[in-house]
Formats: sequence, structure tokens, C-alpha cells
Amino acid sequence: MKHRITYPRSEKVYVSGTIYPDIRVGMRRVHQVPTVTVRGDERTESDNPDVYIYDTSGPFSDPAVTVDLKQGLPRLRESWIAARGDVEQLADLTSDYGRARRRDKSLDHLRFEHITLPYRAKAGRRVTQMHYAKRGIITPEMEYVAIRENMNCEALGIPTHITPEFVRREVAEGRAIIPANINHPEAEPMIIGRDFLVKINTNIGNSATTSSIDEEVEKAMWSCKWGGDTLMDLSTGENIHETREWIIRNCPVPVGTVPLYQTLEKVNGRVEDLNWEIYRDTLIEQCEQGVDYFTIHAGVRLKDIDLANERMTGIVSRGGSIMSKWCKMFGRESFLYEHFDEICDILSQYDVAISLGDGLRPGSIYDANDRAQFAELETLGELVVRAWEHDVQAFIEGPGHVPLHKIKENMDKQIAACHNAPFYTLGPLTTDIAPGYDHITSAIGAAQIAWLGTAMLCYVTPKEHLALPDKEDVRVGVVTYKIAAHVADLAKGHPGAQVRDDALSKARFDFRWKDQFDISLDPERALDYFKAGRHLDGEYCTMCGPNFCAMRLSKDVRNSKDNR
Amino acid sequence: MKHRITYPRSEKVYVSGTIYPDIRVGMRRVHQVPTVTVRGDERTESDNPDVYIYDTSGPFSDPAVTVDLKQGLPRLRESWIAARGDVEQLADLTSDYGRARRRDKSLDHLRFEHITLPYRAKAGRRVTQMHYAKRGIITPEMEYVAIRENMNCEALGIPTHITPEFVRREVAEGRAIIPANINHPEAEPMIIGRDFLVKINTNIGNSATTSSIDEEVEKAMWSCKWGGDTLMDLSTGENIHETREWIIRNCPVPVGTVPLYQTLEKVNGRVEDLNWEIYRDTLIEQCEQGVDYFTIHAGVRLKDIDLANERMTGIVSRGGSIMSKWCKMFGRESFLYEHFDEICDILSQYDVAISLGDGLRPGSIYDANDRAQFAELETLGELVVRAWEHDVQAFIEGPGHVPLHKIKENMDKQIAACHNAPFYTLGPLTTDIAPGYDHITSAIGAAQIAWLGTAMLCYVTPKEHLALPDKEDVRVGVVTYKIAAHVADLAKGHPGAQVRDDALSKARFDFRWKDQFDISLDPERALDYFKAGRHLDGEYCTMCGPNFCAMRLSKDVRNSKDNR
Repeated sequence: MKHRITYPRSEKVYVSGTIYPDIRVGMRRVHQVPTVTVRGDERTESDNPDVYIYDTSGPFSDPAVTVDLKQGLPRLRESWIAARGDVEQLADLTSDYGRARRRDKSLDHLRFEHITLPYRAKAGRRVTQMHYAKRGIITPEMEYVAIRENMNCEALGIPTHITPEFVRREVAEGRAIIPANINHPEAEPMIIGRDFLVKINTNIGNSATTSSIDEEVEKAMWSCKWGGDTLMDLSTGENIHETREWIIRNCPVPVGTVPLYQTLEKVNGRVEDLNWEIYRDTLIEQCEQGVDYFTIHAGVRLKDIDLANERMTGIVSRGGSIMSKWCKMFGRESFLYEHFDEICDILSQYDVAISLGDGLRPGSIYDANDRAQFAELETLGELVVRAWEHDVQAFIEGPGHVPLHKIKENMDKQIAACHNAPFYTLGPLTTDIAPGYDHITSAIGAAQIAWLGTAMLCYVTPKEHLALPDKEDVRVGVVTYKIAAHVADLAKGHPGAQVRDDALSKARFDFRWKDQFDISLDPERALDYFKAGRHLDGEYCTMCGPNFCAMRLSKDVRNSKDNR
Repeated sequence: MKHRITYPRSEKVYVSGTIYPDIRVGMRRVHQVPTVTVRGDERTESDNPDVYIYDTSGPFSDPAVTVDLKQGLPRLRESWIAARGDVEQLADLTSDYGRARRRDKSLDHLRFEHITLPYRAKAGRRVTQMHYAKRGIITPEMEYVAIRENMNCEALGIPTHITPEFVRREVAEGRAIIPANINHPEAEPMIIGRDFLVKINTNIGNSATTSSIDEEVEKAMWSCKWGGDTLMDLSTGENIHETREWIIRNCPVPVGTVPLYQTLEKVNGRVEDLNWEIYRDTLIEQCEQGVDYFTIHAGVRLKDIDLANERMTGIVSRGGSIMSKWCKMFGRESFLYEHFDEICDILSQYDVAISLGDGLRPGSIYDANDRAQFAELETLGELVVRAWEHDVQAFIEGPGHVPLHKIKENMDKQIAACHNAPFYTLGPLTTDIAPGYDHITSAIGAAQIAWLGTAMLCYVTPKEHLALPDKEDVRVGVVTYKIAAHVADLAKGHPGAQVRDDALSKARFDFRWKDQFDISLDPERALDYFKAGRHLDGEYCTMCGPNFCAMRLSKDVRNSKDNR
């Protein structure tokens, strides 16, 4: 079967719920070999526990499921949604554009075949996880994420504060979100918040001249394989609507977009032709396809735009620069800001979360933490409160380029201005001087800001600033950001986070090479490098040779001591 | 000419001293094209200043110098050393082993041809930079490093506290060192200390079965090309003596070694046969070849070794594990500890610095900041004071594997226990779960600890824990660590550090692509990636396409504002 994700010596296992016994939370379990100790003629074996690994690959890694991209993934959450009794299936798409695309016969060859009609809240209802949480309801989604966050805790008896009720309270208070559009029931629930595992987002998408639908779906699977927690489709080229349908129907993680991009395509790239009506239609089109969160640059205020004039690199957010140009052309506040309550009202009918875009984020070390950036942050703080009034889940986007000593100020100000809403940053890059290595310049900043409380990190690939990433870049970008996120999980003391480090290190000390690799973030790469080293037999390797193997000598020391 | 290091559009320039007008400090100067602004029919140009880049490539990048590896590099500091009148050239090598190797005809084909006889302090004299500094003498080496640290400051009028007198005081007080063996006059002076640019060390060296002399010399040049500030030769295989000679004679940066490794080779890997006499002879052998600093694991005390028994990964320092085994076998303190004053006495006659090895550093997140590690650190603090009593320059090696939240304790304890002696760390790695990406797991920790005050970072390559690095790994490792070091320089506010970021970002905003690349840490890689992106003409690129180029739109916004 072609559409299968595999990991070496791993088993797909499921854990059931207590409140909801029917939910099945998928995990990856790695089985380790025993530790063998030989002393003289005596050979002893001691077992090593299974290691559970947070799994973003969904049904693709379950040998019991046959995935056919043309059918899409199983609709995991559909019965949960239906059981709440507050949604209805529509007779047709609501969006004019969506209907026109669907009726266009010339697009038939591009179209996902098994499209179902969308769901929407019944009149006057709100169907967001925040809405339920505020009313004291623990949803299946909430229990699902509680189980998922506690990987290894139950098996190893590690105490954890993350209960379904804790999840509910965090969502109710806006400190965490569960992106879960009712029209993306294929996605497995996950949570983004300061007191949970740090998540990473990957970007895919074609621009004017590159990529095709197949490639984008392939990239989405690839991102999920390496551990991407959410996926943003930033396509700006042809057939955005159809590409997105394929991605969502086959994506086991939440999908985000920047609806402004497609809106601008619809007006042929002419900023002056953007308006609320066409933007609104795009929102609804995407709500009904199943996008789980929208980046909306509603924080770009007319009064703040000129603050960017003194910058080294001006406005580097695409959405921010588009809206700034629009605001300046018409000399008025953006339609995103003016219609923000209406936006929230729409989103609350599908449970689409808002990612409040930082249109004025700094694009260079020189511009970090400037007036433009922090003025917008204040606006984002106002907007998040308005979103919450509509029970819309929301989080805040952050920079960008920030030197190491200015990162804390970003986090502190975000927490204060945005009332503990989750922070979602792009790096930040901690220096500008390394194009080609910006996954690294930004991972340094990402680990730092996540340790301080950022809930989700948007990955950066080695090609940032230079070109669109290919598959290998996506792999390197995802693994690099898994590192940054995990480093922060360790530093924050997330329950059970260190289990994987300890297991890997014990395997290393035991010379259980395969266990060491299989527990690692990228078993294939580790094994490739190891093979390249022309490994010698036994308890040492080519790095140091037999006489200089510290771990071997260290064991001699221990044993000599034991024998005294 | 084969042995040439080149950088795109860069010129090798020299700055002369004031106290010592004859010294010539090499720098790389990148010339930028003007910024072109077109508004309607009006086209204006404004010049961009030259950017000076700290240059570790020595004569290899000077087209006026023809480097012949068989002759070695010009002996830059020989006249400075001679002028001090406190050294004498020996009639023969002092080391028994050195003499035996030199007389062995079977090694002639391996031998560097133009070996000169070594220098040593006249009887009763100490010839270290610390010795001069304590006596109020500003040496040419001190003025050289002062100029070198202030790259871009004079041209741009940036204030700096780094004067030759400041350098002298820092060296006198042990807060900084200038590794400068009188028998390595080819090396360009550089300084390692908390109030200077963060430096990076690269490791090369063959082990039992890999690599050859040619390859090692090639790797040394390669490391210098990418920006390695010092180079440790960790060879443990055949012909260590001859390989080292080739490296030192052709190395424009200080060279460090771990003399214990060669000593162990001399006793055929039998730890029980190690003793002070053969170690002492090895020290002298290497002092007279020109090694600039020795890692000496004198801090491994008998009383502390068993503290490592409860660890996840025991003792992971090669030197530490060897000395621990020796101590346990004989039930006594190591000869390194017992003969420490004699070691210092020898080193003071050649100005070889001591890098106090952390034999009990943690090798996993689990073991970080444990009793074994900090007990040894206390001993290192005692030893550094004893080194200073002999006017021997000294610094302290540090971990290893440390989670992000435990890094600060390492730095604080090191400063307190070691009286402000420079700290030199291996990363630290901030998680254990990413073999194949440990340059990244460690760069996160390295940037953090350098920001807090670590003076030099030992690089880690992607093959760490898996295999010996090849050339590409060395390149990636060095550039990754240049990033970590520069991130810390920015965060610490080193005078002029941000000049390079600002220049690169301005070039980026101006769409001066070639300037952007040529100022970057790895111009070749940036250009390769850019080309892979099938760049379109004009003021945008394939990443976003013309309608979505934020920087282009941002300029429209500025211009629209100006025209109002």
C-alpha cells in the first residue's frame, strides 16, 4: 500500500477513554530489547520498558486501516459532533465561490470525489469547544487530548495534572485551544496551550509557479510522519480550493490557512479590489471545507502602520503588508478590524479558531520589539477578548526576528496584553546572518520562547528567505522544531517528557544501538549516519575506537568497584 | 594554487597597530553595491558601507601569500617572541619520544620537512601572556586581539571598551586567555574571555581506523575557512606525532590537544601502564611542537569517582574515564592531580594554556548538574588558582548534556567556583532524543550558556554519537556554532556585533541578493538554495510570487505615504 507511514519496530496502539469509553487515542509504542550484562561467565538480562511516543501520523501508520486518498481518512469525530445535537447538514454550500467551483465541470478532474455536504451550527447555536467548556461540558475531544498529553505517565506511574477537567478549564478560560472544525472530523484532537506539550506547525503550499495537488498532499503526509502537530496550507497559486479539499480530507491534524491569500487571488492580486464581501465569502467557503483555524490580520490598525516606516525591513508579514496597503489606499481601518464581530459570529458556527496574525512583526534583529510590533500586540489583546465573547477559540501570533535577550519581553508582554491566550511564534530567528541555516537560528529562539510559555511554534526550514522547501527541507524543519519543542517540554517539566531522553540514553550506555535509534526523532537518519561510520563490532564504535570508549571504560570502573 | 581559501567578493585587508605599528591584523572586507531607488522616472543611488568580517583563515585567504603546505605558514609571531629576550632555541628536542620519532628513518616519508628546533624559556623565566600582563606589559599579541575584537567599530564610529590595556588587565586577572605557544608562531593571536567575542573550537582527528595526514590537514584548513577559532587535534591513531606537526605548521589558529590520548597510545592502550614519566615526556613533546593548549583531566579525584555510579550514562569523557579507571586500579589520586604544579611549571616555559577537562561531565539529561559534576568543578576551581600562581593561562571545560532550565546553574557555579576563569563548554545538548541532529540540540544550549558568559564553545557535528564527521559535517558544525556564538554576541551587546545583521537585513529589504549572501555565514549554501528556488526577475522571488511579496508591498506603503 502506497499511502502508509511506517516507523521502525513500532506498534500502533490505542488507549480508550474513561468518560468516553469509545474514544481511541492512537500512540506509537516502541519495544526495546533487554539490557544484557556479562560479568565473567555470568550473563544477566533485565527488561527495558516500552516507550510511548506522541503520534501525529493518524491512520496512515495503522496497518489495520487501508488509506485511500481518494476516499479520505475515516471521519473519526463525526459521531461525537452529531451526538451533541447542535449542528445540521446543509443542503448546499453557503459560499457563492464554493458553489461556482463545485459546479464547474472543467475542474472535475481535479476534484476530490467523495465530498459530503458541510455541517453548520443550528440557528443561534455556537458549536465551539470553548462554548462547551464554559458550560462545564467535558467533550470527547477534551478527554482525548488529556490522554494524548500524558504519554508514558500511566505506564510508568508518573503523576500528571492534565485531567479532562483540567483541559476543560484551560479551554474555558482561553488559555488553551482545541482546533476542531466540525467539517474536519478526520482530524485527531490536539491541544495548544502553555500548560501542555509544545506543538509545532508546518507550512506547505504552492505559490504562483510551483507544486501540484499531489505534491501538496504528499507534503502533508510527510509533515505528519515527522511529527507536525498542525499544518498550514499557504497556497497562493491555481486551484487553491481543490487542493485544500484533498489536503483536509486526508489530514489527521488540524489545518490552518490565511483566507486573505485566496481572497487576493480572487481579485487577481489587486489590493484595491479587496473588500469585506468577498473576504466573508472566502471565510465561509473555507469554514465549510473544514479549515480548523484562520490567521486573520485584524490587528493592523491605520494608526500603527506608519510606525513601520523607520524600520530596517518594513513589514514582512504578507497579510500585514496587504492590509497595510489597503488601509493606506483607502485611508480607513481594515475590513478585518471593522467586521471582527461578524467574523467571530461566522467562526462560532463551525468551531474555526482564530489565529490573530501579527502583521507588524519584526523582520530583522534591528526591528525587534519596536513600537509598531507592540502597538499591534495591544490590539490583538483587545480582539482576543472579543473573540472569547463569541466563544471563539483564539490564539496570538508572534515574531519573527528577535535577539536572545529580547525574547522574554515578547513573552511577558504577550501574556499581559493578551490575557493568557496561547502564543504561536515563528521562531523567532535570533540572528539575521545565516540564510541557509535559518531552521537553526530560529530553533534557538523557538526553544527559548517556548520554555517561557509559547504554546506552538511555526517551523522554519533551511530554505527560509531563499526558496520554497522541498521534502527534505520539510523533514529537517519538522525535526528541528520537534527538538525545540521537546527542549521546552523538558525545561517546563511536562509530565513524562523526560522518559524518552532517559530511555534513549540508557540504550546508548547499553550499546543497544537499534533501541537508541528507534526511540529518536529521526531513526532513519541516525541509522544512515551510523552506517556511514563503518561501525565495528561490540561495545564501541569508530568514533573513539576500543581503547578510548568512555562508556566502556566507565563500566569497567563500575564493575571494578562492585568487585572490591 | 590549491591551498587557497576564497570568499565571494571579499578582500583581505590588514589593520596596523598603534603601540606596535608593525602588527597587521587580517580582516575580510565585503564590498556592497549601492541601494537603488526608483520612483517614477527618478532613480537614486545611495552607497552602503563595507562590512568587515572576523577572519580565521589566515594567510590562506591572502592572494599576496603563496601557501605551500610543505613549507608551512609564515612565522608571524617569531620576531615578537624573540624581541622579548626571554627564550632560547634548543639544540635538540627535550622529549625522548620526540627525538626517537625524529631519528626514525622509516617515518621520513610522513615527516614535515622544514622542522625548526623548538624554543623554550630561558632558565627560571616564564614566557606566558599572563606573566607579561601581570607585570603591566602590553604585548603585540594583546594589541592584535584588541584590534581584532573591534571589527567595524572604527569605520562606523561604534564605541568599544576593548582597548589593549583592557585586554592586558583581563589576561592578568585570569578572566581571559590568549593561547600562544612560543613554538606556534604561525598562529594569529586571538582571545578567549567573557567580555570578548564568543569563540568556537572545532575537533578533528583520526581514530584507530580512519583518516590520513592529508585529510586531517585538509580538515584543519576547512575548519578555518568556515570560522573555527581554535582547533583541537584529538587523533588517537597511528603517526599522531607526525600528523600534529603538519597541522601545527599550517594552522593559523591555536591548536589544542588532550595529551593523555597520545600517552595511552604509547602504552598500547593499557591504562594500568600509564604513569607520570611517560605523560610528562608527552607534554614536553607537544609543548615543543607548538600545541597552544592542553586539556588536562586533573580534576578527577579519587573521592568523586563513585559519585558517577548512580548515573544513567556513567562517565562519558574519554579522559575522565581513563583517569577514573587508573585511579580505581591503583586506589590513589591521579598523577595529573599529584603532579599539577610540575605540569604548570613545564607549561609556563612555552606558554601552553591549560584547559581543565571536565572528566565527570554529564552525558545525558538525567545526569545533568549532579554531585559528580559539581564536585569536580570545585576541584577545577582549586586547580585554576594553582595554574595562575605559575602564570599559566587556564580555562575550564564544561558540559555536555544539560536541559535548558539547568544551564544557568552551570554558569553561575562555574563563575563562583573558578574565580571568573573562562568557561569552555561542549554544547551543552539540551535533549538526548535527536541523534543525527545534535549540532542543533547543542546549539540551543550553546547559545544560552554563551549568552550567560561562556567564552568558547566546542562545536558538535550532526554525526555526534554516531560516527566521525566528514568535511560536510565539519562545515555544518562550524556554521551552526558560529550562529550560536554570534547569537550570544548580539545578546551580550558586543561592540559592533549587530553591524553584520543590519547590513544583511538591509540588503534583503533592498533585494540586493548577492550582498545578502556574501555577508552571510555561508554564502555558497545560500546561493545554492536560492538557485534551487528558480528565482524570478526583479523585486520578489519564488517563495511568495509577485503579488504576495511583503517587502515589495511594504515599500509601496512607504512610498504611498511619502507621496501624500
